[in-house]
Amino acid sequence: MSQPQVGIIMGSQSDLRVMRDAAQVLEELGVSFELTIVSAHRTPERMFDYAKAARQKGLKAIIAGAGGAAHLPGMVASLTTLPVIGVPVKSSNSIDGWDSVLSILQMPGGVPVATVALDGAKNAGILAAQIVGAFDQDVANKLETYKENLKAKVEESISAVSKNGWKA
Amino acid sequence: MSQPQVGIIMGSQSDLRVMRDAAQVLEELGVSFELTIVSAHRTPERMFDYAKAARQKGLKAIIAGAGGAAHLPGMVASLTTLPVIGVPVKSSNSIDGWDSVLSILQMPGGVPVATVALDGAKNAGILAAQIVGAFDQDVANKLETYKENLKAKVEESISAVSKNGWKA
Amino acid sequence: MSQPQVGIIMGSQSDLRVMRDAAQVLEELGVSFELTIVSAHRTPERMFDYAKAARQKGLKAIIAGAGGAAHLPGMVASLTTLPVIGVPVKSSNSIDGWDSVLSILQMPGGVPVATVALDGAKNAGILAAQIVGAFDQDVANKLETYKENLKAKVEESISAVSKNGWKA
Amino acid sequence: MSQPQVGIIMGSQSDLRVMRDAAQVLEELGVSFELTIVSAHRTPERMFDYAKAARQKGLKAIIAGAGGAAHLPGMVASLTTLPVIGVPVKSSNSIDGWDSVLSILQMPGGVPVATVALDGAKNAGILAAQIVGAFDQDVANKLETYKENLKAKVEESISAVSKNGWKA
Amino acid sequence: MSQPQVGIIMGSQSDLRVMRDAAQVLEELGVSFELTIVSAHRTPERMFDYAKAARQKGLKAIIAGAGGAAHLPGMVASLTTLPVIGVPVKSSNSIDGWDSVLSILQMPGGVPVATVALDGAKNAGILAAQIVGAFDQDVANKLETYKENLKAKVEESISAVSKNGWKA
Amino acid sequence: MSQPQVGIIMGSQSDLRVMRDAAQVLEELGVSFELTIVSAHRTPERMFDYAKAARQKGLKAIIAGAGGAAHLPGMVASLTTLPVIGVPVKSSNSIDGWDSVLSILQMPGGVPVATVALDGAKNAGILAAQIVGAFDQDVANKLETYKENLKAKVEESISAVSKNGWKA
Amino acid sequence: MSQPQVGIIMGSQSDLRVMRDAAQVLEELGVSFELTIVSAHRTPERMFDYAKAARQKGLKAIIAGAGGAAHLPGMVASLTTLPVIGVPVKSSNSIDGWDSVLSILQMPGGVPVATVALDGAKNAGILAAQIVGAFDQDVANKLETYKENLKAKVEESISAVSKNGWKA
Amino acid sequence: MSQPQVGIIMGSQSDLRVMRDAAQVLEELGVSFELTIVSAHRTPERMFDYAKAARQKGLKAIIAGAGGAAHLPGMVASLTTLPVIGVPVKSSNSIDGWDSVLSILQMPGGVPVATVALDGAKNAGILAAQIVGAFDQDVANKLETYKENLKAKVEESISAVSKNGWKA
Repeated sequence: MSQPQVGIIMGSQSDLRVMRDAAQVLEELGVSFELTIVSAHRTPERMFDYAKAARQKGLKAIIAGAGGAAHLPGMVASLTTLPVIGVPVKSSNSIDGWDSVLSILQMPGGVPVATVALDGAKNAGILAAQIVGAFDQDVANKLETYKENLKAKVEESISAVSKNGWKA
Repeated sequence: MSQPQVGIIMGSQSDLRVMRDAAQVLEELGVSFELTIVSAHRTPERMFDYAKAARQKGLKAIIAGAGGAAHLPGMVASLTTLPVIGVPVKSSNSIDGWDSVLSILQMPGGVPVATVALDGAKNAGILAAQIVGAFDQDVANKLETYKENLKAKVEESISAVSKNGWKA
Repeated sequence: MSQPQVGIIMGSQSDLRVMRDAAQVLEELGVSFELTIVSAHRTPERMFDYAKAARQKGLKAIIAGAGGAAHLPGMVASLTTLPVIGVPVKSSNSIDGWDSVLSILQMPGGVPVATVALDGAKNAGILAAQIVGAFDQDVANKLETYKENLKAKVEESISAVSKNGWKA
Repeated sequence: MSQPQVGIIMGSQSDLRVMRDAAQVLEELGVSFELTIVSAHRTPERMFDYAKAARQKGLKAIIAGAGGAAHLPGMVASLTTLPVIGVPVKSSNSIDGWDSVLSILQMPGGVPVATVALDGAKNAGILAAQIVGAFDQDVANKLETYKENLKAKVEESISAVSKNGWKA
Repeated sequence: MSQPQVGIIMGSQSDLRVMRDAAQVLEELGVSFELTIVSAHRTPERMFDYAKAARQKGLKAIIAGAGGAAHLPGMVASLTTLPVIGVPVKSSNSIDGWDSVLSILQMPGGVPVATVALDGAKNAGILAAQIVGAFDQDVANKLETYKENLKAKVEESISAVSKNGWKA
Repeated sequence: MSQPQVGIIMGSQSDLRVMRDAAQVLEELGVSFELTIVSAHRTPERMFDYAKAARQKGLKAIIAGAGGAAHLPGMVASLTTLPVIGVPVKSSNSIDGWDSVLSILQMPGGVPVATVALDGAKNAGILAAQIVGAFDQDVANKLETYKENLKAKVEESISAVSKNGWKA
Repeated sequence: MSQPQVGIIMGSQSDLRVMRDAAQVLEELGVSFELTIVSAHRTPERMFDYAKAARQKGLKAIIAGAGGAAHLPGMVASLTTLPVIGVPVKSSNSIDGWDSVLSILQMPGGVPVATVALDGAKNAGILAAQIVGAFDQDVANKLETYKENLKAKVEESISAVSKNGWKA
Repeated sequence: MSQPQVGIIMGSQSDLRVMRDAAQVLEELGVSFELTIVSAHRTPERMFDYAKAARQKGLKAIIAGAGGAAHLPGMVASLTTLPVIGVPVKSSNSIDGWDSVLSILQMPGGVPVATVALDGAKNAGILAAQIVGAFDQDVANKLETYKENLKAKVEESISAVSKNGWKA
């Protein structure tokens, strides 16, 4: 197996329900990745080790998902110079998702996290592919095709509405 | 100097404006403390070391203040079994303080942070003293006196309003 | 039966669904406790009596849970010098839990409440144990074991994901 | 001096800046009142005594103002069967006033507080006068005149704009 | 049938699900009332007529419930000098109830609405009874009994928890 | 003077500071208008009369601005079949403008208000001109020119930044 | 078929569930319309072409619905001088609808969008009819009838409540 | 001059006050960039052209800042497969910045924007450098040095507090 280019991590196994979408879209776009559980609050040493080792093992970007007081993306960003993409996960006791969004987004000057929408793991995967694709023409081409497929699906729905009418 | 019982830490020197109140009230209540800067995002190793060493050097509680995506209190809590008191600081680019409040308050099950009000460093100091005072009668007595002083100040304002009238 | 070290109170029997987690974790951690209903708005005298008597009957901390305009934790804190831990409960007519969070968190200077996450009764129990454990080595050891168990559970989920893959 | 019909209380002398408007309008409307400081968190016994004695000393309504985790109106309401009018005060460390609004408004079933707008002490005074005026024709007549004056002031501004134009 | 003392109105028949609680508690407390539909936006003339006639037909207070951009309570308050109690109803397309709460609460100076909690129709009924009870000893006595029943129910739940334990 | 095509109304003279922008842009776009004060809460009869007469006196659209619990736009919309444009005004005691935004925006089915941004009176004026311009080619042409001027101003700023550099 | 006067567009076929109401009410009011899918983010060129051609093909107004970071209404408004009505759709990953409301409402000076309530497509249709009806007496008459029907339905519900009582 | 690797664009010249920080930090990190004004709403064609040409002229990432209903970052992302970094700018009529944050963050599946904190242009610059640095060792080294400098500044503040004490 080739060395993964993207690391996908999440705070708990229950986040896999959401974070799976990142893996799925990276697979579609032909970008190699690894996926595992790293908890900022329950395995802080593991988080340190993962973040510290990320660049030297060849990763180009890290996708980190977490809910509630979501510290994983920001703490990983404090420990690496790779781009870190944060996915706010709407967990069960969340206050409507605001907690995870703000805990990931509002990083202090010097330590950015590239935040995507609430439960937006698919977009995190695409963003990681775009980072790789900024330097890799093959991935760039796949992203172009992906964009065209998005458009094609809209065109299908245009035809469907045109044919069936708005009452259908 | 006696071994400090409470550690006061904060993410940046600019937080001292707010966090100073915790030191002030601990001094008033006769609880020994230490105060320093520990940044979760800029000195993560220092944060690890501080939190890991806290109990064995005799601390009974840690007060941690931070603004924005405030990860310091929660990360310290993940690294010690001491009670950690979190102070959400309303920093300059904060979204009305909601970011620091939610980043500190909404910790996952297993890793609590005792959160106080926005910019509530004075209350963090009192809470730390209450923790010490749960086991130390001298501190408990000082807290009792402190409470009576609060009441006495209200009584002074009652007299002032009674004497001067509401139009004054 | 030994004298309880922690008092768990809540505004209504319907809060027991949430507050039970505090009792459960204190039992696990070997900290003795008592649990009862005290309503700030429907039994204010009882609340006064409970809070006033708490220290002399040997409690080291009080956990108070309430929803909506949640006044129980703050009022109890005004009547004792013990540390009071507040649990915002998301009740049925709550405005997404914001009401109970802010009613408990935003206490004025002089009267702190150690607030935990929305419906975070488990963390309230752990925090109470941490307060006791700051002075009691047995409880501290149990908290250490608890923390290791949290880590062990993450490690199990790491193995599960590693073995079954992210598509499972 | 006649027995006051309305009691105006507030958590601290600093609230007088806002709460004075209630006194002012009651004076205008010829409704007798008393005004003093009662702090839920710093003088809880005084609050109990005030609320318990209110009806028998002839009050018809109580206006209570407080900021942050504003417990005064709701606690007073738990201790009397008189109508209690709550004024959320936007205090200095408030989270945009949301804390005081929700702490006063979201009372549980059985214990209402008649909440007015943020810093809406003038309306609290008018509401107290309306309660008295529901049974007292003199006060009702003054409220009618007050309403006509509001209209007359709008009519003056209509004339001013008509005369001076919108560019003035 | 005796002349009603309280008018209960609501914007649409679907609000009856919530507003029924006001009628229920007024019935319990022996306060006569009438209940009907008055829509600010669909029957504005009817709203004018209702509000204008309210005092002369003997009403002492009006309870008005509405959802979304809830204009009924405030508009009625602009047309009468009786106390108007507003109930924010959480309707289906509401933005979490914030729209109805703020549309009712944030009235301008001069025109108060006594706002109760989201969906708090029961408390609106009690508040109306408190207004009547400020001048009517029979109703005051019934409110006293109501308060004692609230306490008695808490005491039952205390016994239940004491007997059955927190695990039940 | 020609019969005005747009009516601009606002709840109080203090709103003129914001609402003047609507008049200004209508003047620029050559759309005739009238401007006056109409208060939903202090002159409800005047509001009725204004709204009821609007269509027959030739208005094509009404712009209504108000702050706090802003009922003017929605109530006017309930009384006319003309398009009503609502401007949420951020008044002094507003809760960050949310109250006026939600009071205007969240109208029930059947009674729309065309809401613009907080303090967005200029856009209300343009929107009114667009309504007229949908049927009047002269106004449409002026709107086209207005749009080109917006673009021209951006182009000037592009040149300025290009010439002076980003450090200027 | 006559040339449509209103264009209804939406970001995705899943929005049809909400946006259908706009079509339905325009049909009732006898205003011709067309309905199709135009995605700002997936078919940006199509959006350009649609908006640019709208006026010359005879449209008088455009209704655009979108959810989340809802850019369709504002971008269309940047490309035409026709009035654009925006419908914030509460999509599945929305943060309670706040994202679509604010993305549509808070347009910069110069480029208005007439925003209606969350999921308020019916009101968008009525507003479009009001725009047409400002210049077309037939449509104005139908709007008058529509308004009377709204009132008649309230009157039916008044009778139903009067007959069946509030307990039914 | 070398071909720029990063494009910095913003909706209006007034955003330069905030967006300048992105340029400043890219200069420090030795990453070439270009900076200009591109308005989604006032120069939509220019936005199309800029986004469409970005990849072929050699850009590796685009930083786009905008306030209010901030459509620039998301629209640019819809027109390129390069990574787009969005900076929510807190503009003057913004509703506390929530509008720009949500308009940029909550992009639909398929079209990500890498969002940074409110007014977080410095972090946008660092993130763009991290993207370049994922493939360029020189930039990676400069990011490493930058991180060490952040730490060094904290260490200076630690010394200052240690030397001067917390009362200074």
